[in-house]
Amino acid sequence: MRSFDVVVIGAGPAGEVAAGRLADGGLEVAIVEDRLVGGECSYWACMPSKALLRPYEALAEVKRIPGAAQAVRGSLDAPAVLARRDEIIHDLDDATQLPWLEDRGVALFRGHGALTGGRRVTVGGEELEARRAVILAGGSVPMFPPIEGLDGVEGAWTNREATTAKEIPERLLILGGGVVGVEMAQAFQTLGSQVTLIEGERRLLPREEEFACAQVTDALASYGVEIRTGQKATKVSQSDGTVTVTTSDGTTAESELLLVALGRRPSTETLGLESVGLEPGGTVAVDSLCRVPKHPWLYAIGDINGRALFTHMGKYQGRLAADSILGHDHAISHGADGPLSPRVIFTDPQVAAVGHTTDTAARAGLELDVYDTETSGNAGGSYYGRGAPGTARFLVDRERRLVVGCTITGAEVADFLHAATIAIVGEVPLERLRHAVPSFPTRSEIWLKLLEQAGV
Amino acid sequence: MRSFDVVVIGAGPAGEVAAGRLADGGLEVAIVEDRLVGGECSYWACMPSKALLRPYEALAEVKRIPGAAQAVRGSLDAPAVLARRDEIIHDLDDATQLPWLEDRGVALFRGHGALTGGRRVTVGGEELEARRAVILAGGSVPMFPPIEGLDGVEGAWTNREATTAKEIPERLLILGGGVVGVEMAQAFQTLGSQVTLIEGERRLLPREEEFACAQVTDALASYGVEIRTGQKATKVSQSDGTVTVTTSDGTTAESELLLVALGRRPSTETLGLESVGLEPGGTVAVDSLCRVPKHPWLYAIGDINGRALFTHMGKYQGRLAADSILGHDHAISHGADGPLSPRVIFTDPQVAAVGHTTDTAARAGLELDVYDTETSGNAGGSYYGRGAPGTARFLVDRERRLVVGCTITGAEVADFLHAATIAIVGEVPLERLRHAVPSFPTRSEIWLKLLEQAGV
Repeated sequence: MRSFDVVVIGAGPAGEVAAGRLADGGLEVAIVEDRLVGGECSYWACMPSKALLRPYEALAEVKRIPGAAQAVRGSLDAPAVLARRDEIIHDLDDATQLPWLEDRGVALFRGHGALTGGRRVTVGGEELEARRAVILAGGSVPMFPPIEGLDGVEGAWTNREATTAKEIPERLLILGGGVVGVEMAQAFQTLGSQVTLIEGERRLLPREEEFACAQVTDALASYGVEIRTGQKATKVSQSDGTVTVTTSDGTTAESELLLVALGRRPSTETLGLESVGLEPGGTVAVDSLCRVPKHPWLYAIGDINGRALFTHMGKYQGRLAADSILGHDHAISHGADGPLSPRVIFTDPQVAAVGHTTDTAARAGLELDVYDTETSGNAGGSYYGRGAPGTARFLVDRERRLVVGCTITGAEVADFLHAATIAIVGEVPLERLRHAVPSFPTRSEIWLKLLEQAGV
Repeated sequence: MRSFDVVVIGAGPAGEVAAGRLADGGLEVAIVEDRLVGGECSYWACMPSKALLRPYEALAEVKRIPGAAQAVRGSLDAPAVLARRDEIIHDLDDATQLPWLEDRGVALFRGHGALTGGRRVTVGGEELEARRAVILAGGSVPMFPPIEGLDGVEGAWTNREATTAKEIPERLLILGGGVVGVEMAQAFQTLGSQVTLIEGERRLLPREEEFACAQVTDALASYGVEIRTGQKATKVSQSDGTVTVTTSDGTTAESELLLVALGRRPSTETLGLESVGLEPGGTVAVDSLCRVPKHPWLYAIGDINGRALFTHMGKYQGRLAADSILGHDHAISHGADGPLSPRVIFTDPQVAAVGHTTDTAARAGLELDVYDTETSGNAGGSYYGRGAPGTARFLVDRERRLVVGCTITGAEVADFLHAATIAIVGEVPLERLRHAVPSFPTRSEIWLKLLEQAGV
């Protein structure tokens, strides 16, 4: 039986970061992966989806700029977009990821990893001992809710098939208007498909601010996505290569291809959780350092603990867990984790948010002041995101005079977010923010409008 | 004699902000302007220059993106760029700026304003009384240093003629490689001129980090700007419509058009400063609330006090001065004002900086840790600024564990800056910044590299 200080199950971003940090800290580390080193994010989620979205976004921005717009005489080149996507996902080959592990002396075991007892992991028939800790970082898989006929559809896509598609289908029917649904709706519609998007809730992106949802919905509709909200899929059937979805109002939608984007569930069914007295199938509950209660040697990071299904938060948890194992504890509670974590939806307009939305703040019982401004309603907006929709909303805790939530929509606003994240996590009061001057003429002057409206 | 609570001399951004804030605070305010309401920035500086730069930048970015690049089949349309520029500067008509003043009940006096004694201002023969305060906000004008023959050149451009040019000249010779020089070099070269840029110092943008200068220099050179650094202009002559500049090494450069971009001096020669015992001609010294020492009724904001020649800092000082007059004092000293103010140079690559550079920190005697990373050397860089040059440098005060300076170069990084400004001004320690997680995949992950390198 080989023995390591730490065994990490799952070599996605969270597992890799934890393993690397532990190895840098001088520990002997093994990492177990049954698919590709780099994980869902690198091959079938964040990375390929942005590759499909960015060309449209960049071209849309140029078309808003007189003098540059005139140079655009063609349209998106879908095969070139797909080829660049393939480059980004390295044609589903993880060879380029291996040196990073090798440089750190992390031992890679390929195969399915599972616990067989306390500090014991099996992979491909081999037993590994973890002298200090085991980290579960197995990620999540697409969810197929119990909709009549859904399980029986042959060739249904999940995010995996959508993000790695080799051709742009004529029609695409998407079940689910969350992040995967809206991003893939934009990608495929702008690359040539006729997309139909079905969402059971009253609106798309139900967890984000209402205005964010409205702006993304308008954008998708403007170039032809057929959007049906408030319609739960009740039945799915397939015949002669056509999938038919029946919704709660009795109408139907048809397509050759169905993309199921109805959420994700943690990969915990075959992890051997029962061998250490834990329940398989659900999320693995953890404390603020990602430790599994009552199992001082066991950690769970990333999607598997259900706290925040984002690559960046998985990596963050990887750092916390590694530091904890190395003897340095950094509490996770800081006002922008869990469901309040920073997040970006890469549609055009983008939706960048951190901390509370108006809804979550109300549910948390916070007394709020809400300040809205147009993202491009300033001098910077004459050049960037000109005339494009966009709103910046700041939520201020009335008593503490702190920003506790921020949602910014608009053209290419992803990198606006970190200022809000630092203000929220750093708990920088408005009276100090008054002295943080945004440069002119940049759209960061949204911060000035906040200060003006808040009377500081 | 008409009487107001406050008389503001100069209706550029600084003066306008101060006047508006005072009026919102319930005071009777007059503002005096001898040119256009909106000031240098709106018509002859920040606004038109960005109009000339942005189309090239946006097109350069699209060309870096496979799938979108294929749609670009033409080049920049210079007449359309100039037409959009005219739209942005409202064809040098300030009518659209007036309602903002009118809505606030600010009385506008057109004409040259000057002090005639304590709390007295003359404009067009009319005497105004300022019951509480006078704010000097007259801005700055281009400097013509004593170079032989320079004063005698007919038709020499300053930033005013360059930013409002109605045609793109065949050749343009620029004296001065500071912000105006490099921005206009990019604008005119990319719009069709052959530009020669002469700078007396060893390098362009001598106040910014060396790598920023190198990257901007390489970019300008890559599309044909002829750059001569370390050569001071010693003589300028003009004959038959050709301007010839002789430099300290004895070589010459020729062009039909000369742009003089050799810095600015405060507009204080005809302000009546001598009537209140102050020296005309130089900057007006102020304290941290922009008050002129020994003149409790007199404030000076914006370029005129020489603290930080940026529109945003002028507006900031306008807020400070107005608040001080209204009885609310907010100290200006916060670690990112004066020469350490946030600043953006809108070349491609852009240069965005706040707080110390390596040089200013060394001169201030700070013990620093310097952390560099590639701006696009992360997952976000696969989509934004792909393959474009760019560096993010964080300067950390070793003892206090605080970021005290940040310079970010790269494609479209202007709005990255505010995160650094908040971290510096908010004095958010590294140990707290560890919990401010940048979203994946955005280029804001430059912050992760900082944390990694700093070992937090």
